[in-house]
Amino acid sequence: MLVIRLTRVTSTQDFAEAIHDIVEEKEFVVVAEEQTKARGRFGRAWYSPKGGLWVTHVMKDFEAERVPDLTLANALAIRKALEKYVNAKVRWPNDVVVGDKKIAGVLVEAVAQGDKATAFVGFGVDTNVTKFPKDVRATSVLLETGKPADNDELLFEIISLTKEYLRLNLSQLAKELDNHSSLNGREVRISGEGWEKRCKALFVDFMGRLVTDCGVFEVEEVHRVEVI
Amino acid sequence: MLVIRLTRVTSTQDFAEAIHDIVEEKEFVVVAEEQTKARGRFGRAWYSPKGGLWVTHVMKDFEAERVPDLTLANALAIRKALEKYVNAKVRWPNDVVVGDKKIAGVLVEAVAQGDKATAFVGFGVDTNVTKFPKDVRATSVLLETGKPADNDELLFEIISLTKEYLRLNLSQLAKELDNHSSLNGREVRISGEGWEKRCKALFVDFMGRLVTDCGVFEVEEVHRVEVI
Repeated sequence: MLVIRLTRVTSTQDFAEAIHDIVEEKEFVVVAEEQTKARGRFGRAWYSPKGGLWVTHVMKDFEAERVPDLTLANALAIRKALEKYVNAKVRWPNDVVVGDKKIAGVLVEAVAQGDKATAFVGFGVDTNVTKFPKDVRATSVLLETGKPADNDELLFEIISLTKEYLRLNLSQLAKELDNHSSLNGREVRISGEGWEKRCKALFVDFMGRLVTDCGVFEVEEVHRVEVI
Repeated sequence: MLVIRLTRVTSTQDFAEAIHDIVEEKEFVVVAEEQTKARGRFGRAWYSPKGGLWVTHVMKDFEAERVPDLTLANALAIRKALEKYVNAKVRWPNDVVVGDKKIAGVLVEAVAQGDKATAFVGFGVDTNVTKFPKDVRATSVLLETGKPADNDELLFEIISLTKEYLRLNLSQLAKELDNHSSLNGREVRISGEGWEKRCKALFVDFMGRLVTDCGVFEVEEVHRVEVI
């Protein structure tokens, strides 16, 4: 598979989106050592210094209706790939955490043409990051274990696990996510565009929604979830 | 230096132009194993199968007024780098030939911002191409010598020689091109937008123009030059 390796780039996502129709491969990966303007969901900044694993995995001719499943599959893949280093869980909908500290995040974007789409599966894993800005509650494999992770090995594991998870359908993926959720049974602050709620998270339902004692939340409407 | 290696791409030039402001390096190189829609001057197709050396060398913050010198410097660099394999000459303005058969071509494009420009120095060298379409009068290192050229070695030689040639000013570059011109003293067919002339090529003047017995030609107005 084509792997495009960059040193400094604004974001692997921007890069992949700029070139996807120029590159003729149906599938390719963009990896950067450092991102200077990386972004997460809703355009939020994502801290991406050297040491981390910053990736966009592009899949052309992807079934458009399965694009939403990609976030779940990729987050689960990251969690599983990190298993040999740390005990990671998924913080619904798109973060991977170790003891409530973020260690990875997923951002899926797509361009659809009819029932097919080009999917840009962006993910960042704080493998060997040693320091975080004060307002970022995060950790890394290196900080947790004292040992660096092998970024390249992890990259290919995550990609291969993502594809394995995609063999499951949405309800199976959601069940798997529920099994590895960091939120279940806990008090959380959920916020969206101009609103915030405090609820008790119960479980992730068969559609991948977060069920709480104060309502059921769709991925698209939730900006942020924090454990109180 | 950042080298982005691709397998199949429409053209390294398109690719480099799409990403130059996303990649943060001031200088980088795009190399493809194969181009599917490569282009030369005036949008002409450039045959780019596997085996050849297909490159775009991007230089940001390049002095805008020196952009025209890049074609000369790059063509001269290719000629010199090929010296150890074949006896190559420059066919004004932007081809490198072996005995009137094209072996390489240069396409310089640029985006200017004030007195600085981002230059896209595109070049293609038919190093190890073994077959050409019937309407293409071309040859390769492999066809000429029976031995393959080392694409990677050649790539870095050409880039380094281009920079060396850029130490010369335009009149020195033009003089050097004149010394290595394949046209001097020969009957040529020169064509442009809607016109064609048969002339005797005399020399390349201090401004890089082709002086003939039927007029002086600027690079920009000439589409094609063929030896009759």
